[in-house]
Amino acid sequence: MGSLPLELFQPLDPDVFIKESHAVVDFIADYYRGIEQYPVRSQAEPGYLSKLLPDTPPIFSEPIDTILEDIKKDIIPGLTHWQSPNFYAYFQANASTAGFLGEMLCSGFNVVGFSWISSPAATELESIVMDWMAKMMKLPSMFLFSGGQGGGGVLHGSTCEAVVCTLAAARDKALTKIGHDSITKLVVYASDQTHFTVQKASKIIGIPPCNFRVIPTTAYSGYGLTADAVRSVMEEDISQEFTPLYLCATVGTTAIGAVDPLLELGQVAKEFGVWFHVDAAYAGSSAVCPEFRRYFDGVELADSISMNPHKWFLTNMDCCCLWLRSPTELVDSLSTNPETLRNKPSDAREVVDYKDWQIALSRRFRAMKLWLVIRRYGMAGLMEHIRSDVGLAKHFEKLPRFDDDDDDDGLKMNIRLLDAVNSSGRAFMTHAIIGGRFVIRFAIGTTLTEIRHVDATWRLIQGIAKGLLLADHS
Amino acid sequence: MGSLPLELFQPLDPDVFIKESHAVVDFIADYYRGIEQYPVRSQAEPGYLSKLLPDTPPIFSEPIDTILEDIKKDIIPGLTHWQSPNFYAYFQANASTAGFLGEMLCSGFNVVGFSWISSPAATELESIVMDWMAKMMKLPSMFLFSGGQGGGGVLHGSTCEAVVCTLAAARDKALTKIGHDSITKLVVYASDQTHFTVQKASKIIGIPPCNFRVIPTTAYSGYGLTADAVRSVMEEDISQEFTPLYLCATVGTTAIGAVDPLLELGQVAKEFGVWFHVDAAYAGSSAVCPEFRRYFDGVELADSISMNPHKWFLTNMDCCCLWLRSPTELVDSLSTNPETLRNKPSDAREVVDYKDWQIALSRRFRAMKLWLVIRRYGMAGLMEHIRSDVGLAKHFEKLPRFDDDDDDDGLKMNIRLLDAVNSSGRAFMTHAIIGGRFVIRFAIGTTLTEIRHVDATWRLIQGIAKGLLLADHS
Repeated sequence: MGSLPLELFQPLDPDVFIKESHAVVDFIADYYRGIEQYPVRSQAEPGYLSKLLPDTPPIFSEPIDTILEDIKKDIIPGLTHWQSPNFYAYFQANASTAGFLGEMLCSGFNVVGFSWISSPAATELESIVMDWMAKMMKLPSMFLFSGGQGGGGVLHGSTCEAVVCTLAAARDKALTKIGHDSITKLVVYASDQTHFTVQKASKIIGIPPCNFRVIPTTAYSGYGLTADAVRSVMEEDISQEFTPLYLCATVGTTAIGAVDPLLELGQVAKEFGVWFHVDAAYAGSSAVCPEFRRYFDGVELADSISMNPHKWFLTNMDCCCLWLRSPTELVDSLSTNPETLRNKPSDAREVVDYKDWQIALSRRFRAMKLWLVIRRYGMAGLMEHIRSDVGLAKHFEKLPRFDDDDDDDGLKMNIRLLDAVNSSGRAFMTHAIIGGRFVIRFAIGTTLTEIRHVDATWRLIQGIAKGLLLADHS
Repeated sequence: MGSLPLELFQPLDPDVFIKESHAVVDFIADYYRGIEQYPVRSQAEPGYLSKLLPDTPPIFSEPIDTILEDIKKDIIPGLTHWQSPNFYAYFQANASTAGFLGEMLCSGFNVVGFSWISSPAATELESIVMDWMAKMMKLPSMFLFSGGQGGGGVLHGSTCEAVVCTLAAARDKALTKIGHDSITKLVVYASDQTHFTVQKASKIIGIPPCNFRVIPTTAYSGYGLTADAVRSVMEEDISQEFTPLYLCATVGTTAIGAVDPLLELGQVAKEFGVWFHVDAAYAGSSAVCPEFRRYFDGVELADSISMNPHKWFLTNMDCCCLWLRSPTELVDSLSTNPETLRNKPSDAREVVDYKDWQIALSRRFRAMKLWLVIRRYGMAGLMEHIRSDVGLAKHFEKLPRFDDDDDDDGLKMNIRLLDAVNSSGRAFMTHAIIGGRFVIRFAIGTTLTEIRHVDATWRLIQGIAKGLLLADHS
């Protein structure tokens, strides 16, 4: 002990790296080739894996071929195949070759760009690609670094992180004026369609859970928030001596893709002096197509905007864009300046240090991935991608529908139908409850989905539904 | 618009995937082969990249070869090479072939395992690998799923996330008893050597910044926290009607690797009823070697323990292990149960839903990576890895040292020496201030570092120091 081993352990030998990496690339390509053979939603039972794997780690090294065989045998049956063309559940998590290449480069370089100096290219590419993305979405120049008005963007891992950070910035800006004791008086506003991540983030940053207002929406507004509803809740809060803090509007809600009217809501936010965040996690990618950009009218009133390229923009997990009108407000809340990280460019305030724009110190070189996706496919390819998915959804919409059935049997039938389709392994869909009704969601847009899959899944649904109806009447 | 394009855009075609992925693998291997030719700390000037890249995204697709050429030409000169064998700054961020393969599989499958059902293998492998890792570190069984006492672990992206989540759990457990208004009375304790992430996390979850106690350490205790110091600060707080909430102890501090005495501190934590967190981000990996396990004596008193395989455990970014004695306390604070995610196994509480163990909903399949590292290298290989690095550090320690120089010239000389070494591009080190003195840190442990690099860097340091001394006296 203490003496050096004669033979050094070499876990980054380039020849081994090439050989094993090529094997894994081929393994993944085979997985994509055969993906339709697997049940889309895993049919594994809880606890299945601990019956297959040893309960202690191996003492000695195992060869990669053995590990890949075990992945095929033990892991793949327990995957729910998000990349299957027959995956219509939750949201699409688009993988792509370019996204994968970007992840490889991120992981291969394995640099940690918390401060500019800890890898200048990681910071600068991120700032450039955030401006590119903003230009593709035609966001107002105030959100761009190059806009010259102090704005800019950062890549987070998730919307929740973006919301935690912007909520913390809004909170600290408010508490600086009214004192920290007033944290229990701050109120956050969202709709009953807003992603639950906002409620969770609000709790995380210390707002009392009872100060989170879930404003009801109705079919009348397409399940979008109305300015009147928001205004009346805020007025009521003020009359009770609460302080409205933060309003989240959504472009493309989780359950049904509803769109909150940004222009009206932004005006209410201005009126009450609250932070206005726009969550476009899901539908934000569509803004690259001019015909969908109108859903973002009013975004110029936002204080912050987030969207996830890891959903519908061919960018493998994880990647969340967050733009800010005044990043200094975020930095004021999140910055730290420990001696061990001090350096000349940071001290001179010549550079962006992204550690102060996020929760953690460490960060991955995610910009590489988004940059590769944009360059490899180009704006034209990315627009085609979005339009192709919208085309598939419009195609599905035209297929015959079941008659509406408002009685309880309809609810039960939908639940049974969903369960039967998912248990068949041939497609995976999930549900929502909208206006009190149980709705089966059919979220089209995995990278491999083609019109033939949509048609076949529709036939599957019809067949299963007919079987259930027959069984009921026999 | 609305009509389907005749030719579908195919960004996940397996043949293209193989061809381009192989090209990128070879590119990364070439990067490792030639990594010593690059300046370790990038010599780029702030703003260098925006002069090289276009300020708008491309309209049309670009070939991968063009992109890789640009990475070589424009990006690599802006990287600070964390994988260089001459990188001795901050902390080691070990890359390895197995870590890279695990990242590829994670990215290739691109599943999102937020709930058990959204990919059972992702959840179950994570639970199994957390138990493996705990066994390797000889953590008490109460932190293992298989320990049968309700404990268990989760993979986060960073220590800060682990601290935010455990702080939120501790906060909500306390506020349930004493009311949310008392959030301004809660106090968090750490030492002047504790990573700043704890202070940041404490602010994020809404504890007033003035309620964060930075307890001084001294050379006398090896810059470790003492039980007496903690007890007296807590007693003082209680006398002022504050409520002690959370104590963070560190095994292997950022600046100099100091170790807080867990047993004594854990006893104080018990005495005052505060949450006791052990941050072993950096040195935690060493616990796999029996001869270093003694630094963890007393860990059985912890409520939670975190360590980062993405530092010193050959696991590419990002990967942070968090174990909890009572995960239900975490889940009570962070859980959400939106209708769109409801499913039978979750409703029956038969499974772990990791979305309730972390900040975000989305999560990457990080367990794949850690599992591959452990299997590919085995416990024996991983122990050799740790021992080899410790051996290199002990070797370096024996090399002749400069005479201590306590006057101001010594400080200035150290600053000039550090600056000159880093500007040479031949090595990168960073600094700390310990007990009021400016210290150059020499953090040994990147995957590619061998004894010849340590020796050559020592000669470089000597040469530069001599040059500076000569210049001063000429």
